[in-house]
Amino acid sequence: MIESVPNLSEGRSEERISRIAFAVGGAGCRLLDIHSDRDHNRSVLTFVGEPDRIIDAVVALAGAAFEEIDIRTHRGVHPRIGSLDVVPLVPLFDSSMEDCIGLARSLGDEIALRYGVPVYLYGDAASSPERRELSSIRKGGLTGLASRISSPEWHPDFGPARLHPTAGAVAVGARGLLVAYNVLLDTEDIAIGRRIASAIREREGGLPGVKALAFYLESRRLVQVSMNLTDIDATPIPRAFSAVRKEAARYGVGVVESEIVGLVPRRALQGAGKEDLLCRRDPAELILEDRI
Amino acid sequence: MIESVPNLSEGRSEERISRIAFAVGGAGCRLLDIHSDRDHNRSVLTFVGEPDRIIDAVVALAGAAFEEIDIRTHRGVHPRIGSLDVVPLVPLFDSSMEDCIGLARSLGDEIALRYGVPVYLYGDAASSPERRELSSIRKGGLTGLASRISSPEWHPDFGPARLHPTAGAVAVGARGLLVAYNVLLDTEDIAIGRRIASAIREREGGLPGVKALAFYLESRRLVQVSMNLTDIDATPIPRAFSAVRKEAARYGVGVVESEIVGLVPRRALQGAGKEDLLCRRDPAELILEDRI
Repeated sequence: MIESVPNLSEGRSEERISRIAFAVGGAGCRLLDIHSDRDHNRSVLTFVGEPDRIIDAVVALAGAAFEEIDIRTHRGVHPRIGSLDVVPLVPLFDSSMEDCIGLARSLGDEIALRYGVPVYLYGDAASSPERRELSSIRKGGLTGLASRISSPEWHPDFGPARLHPTAGAVAVGARGLLVAYNVLLDTEDIAIGRRIASAIREREGGLPGVKALAFYLESRRLVQVSMNLTDIDATPIPRAFSAVRKEAARYGVGVVESEIVGLVPRRALQGAGKEDLLCRRDPAELILEDRI
Repeated sequence: MIESVPNLSEGRSEERISRIAFAVGGAGCRLLDIHSDRDHNRSVLTFVGEPDRIIDAVVALAGAAFEEIDIRTHRGVHPRIGSLDVVPLVPLFDSSMEDCIGLARSLGDEIALRYGVPVYLYGDAASSPERRELSSIRKGGLTGLASRISSPEWHPDFGPARLHPTAGAVAVGARGLLVAYNVLLDTEDIAIGRRIASAIREREGGLPGVKALAFYLESRRLVQVSMNLTDIDATPIPRAFSAVRKEAARYGVGVVESEIVGLVPRRALQGAGKEDLLCRRDPAELILEDRI
């Protein structure tokens, strides 16, 4: 069984998201969760299935996303390179990272072939070390990629060496489980958010396995620190929460709430509940093991 | 080919609506449109398919709706009796009203049997003249129906003579094409809306085939006249629009915009465009014939 967690560049129109979900419904995967965000203007779908069912589902998803979402008119605070922005494949139980790498290649090939959209492989499926990190593929967003795509070192792994006019490009990858986790701060000052993100991210000497960005959320008029926790044993959710809270306190800023995007392995929570994490939604409802 | 236009009592949570759409996606019908309304807290799905595919799709839809929507906590201005509130079946092209009546009965039986939810047949499928109008089944909403359901004359056509605790009841019916059409008024005074609705509805001597209600829309802080046009040859959309505008003018109230819910046969528009009807969305994109 493989988990796929596609990120779509649409988090506002119920109707579009529903039409996309409808298009995928028949492909034989189980949809475990949909998480839409108006500020990010992005939806994260979590589904699981056998490898060939995952291919069918993501190909159907790509078709619907390309039909419904025009990346030229997309507005949202989250960086992205396409209508179907990123498709991570995650091995569960009996499947291996090798399975996911093979699947990412087949899927990338199929998407490029069928829709003429360039595909980049990333994570453990990356074709070079420079492409391993999603952030390097996505650097400068759609315009950044547009300026690099025709250079030989940024030639897509599949499809044409030019962005699709309405769909952009897609990143398809294999990776281990990760937790997407956001903390909302009681400040409108994005500079404070950026300093906190910088203090906690691994790359700048912060917490192990933590990637972090800061966004200003128009709908809340507050700043969010948005994290990926890629090593949940070293940095489980409560540790990330405390670190952000502690850093924020240095600027006299409090934490308003936190939010788990999609589903999480039970051990990522370390028993922390709704109140501990100031979550609106009970984290106990978002445990991956309970949904499968 | 048969058209089905199920109305769900959920118009706010993208995630729930998407999960419901996903559940129906595999059933072999074509989804033509989804229209969600936050104030009504209601979504209208339009799909078409062969009779047996329609049964599969609506049964899947019912299952997902009953799982996702708890009618006890539902809030919204539109009257309703259940999580899956109403399932109209409409003959298109080669199919007849008789086909739809037979299908409504099979579908009602299946929903009641499988989920233990009481089902009322209405419209051309009604088992008695008192049940022909949806408004009489829905009179007093869920509490109204709760008080009548155990009396012999309001025994459901299928299923138990008590409301399902979380799903309520479902109305399944056969009817001809109709147009759901809303006009937003430049007033917060619901009394004016009610007087206009009363002036234009057929039952009180208004326009042929017009049913009308007035709602106060919290999200707009304005009053809406919400209509069903059941005889689009006698009262096409532009005629309904003009009638509301004319009645509103008697109170010195203007029309802010109008809105078509779902899809409409081309002739219902009589060539009227976006500007004529003050629609946000171009009515030319909502023509049923073009989607099939």
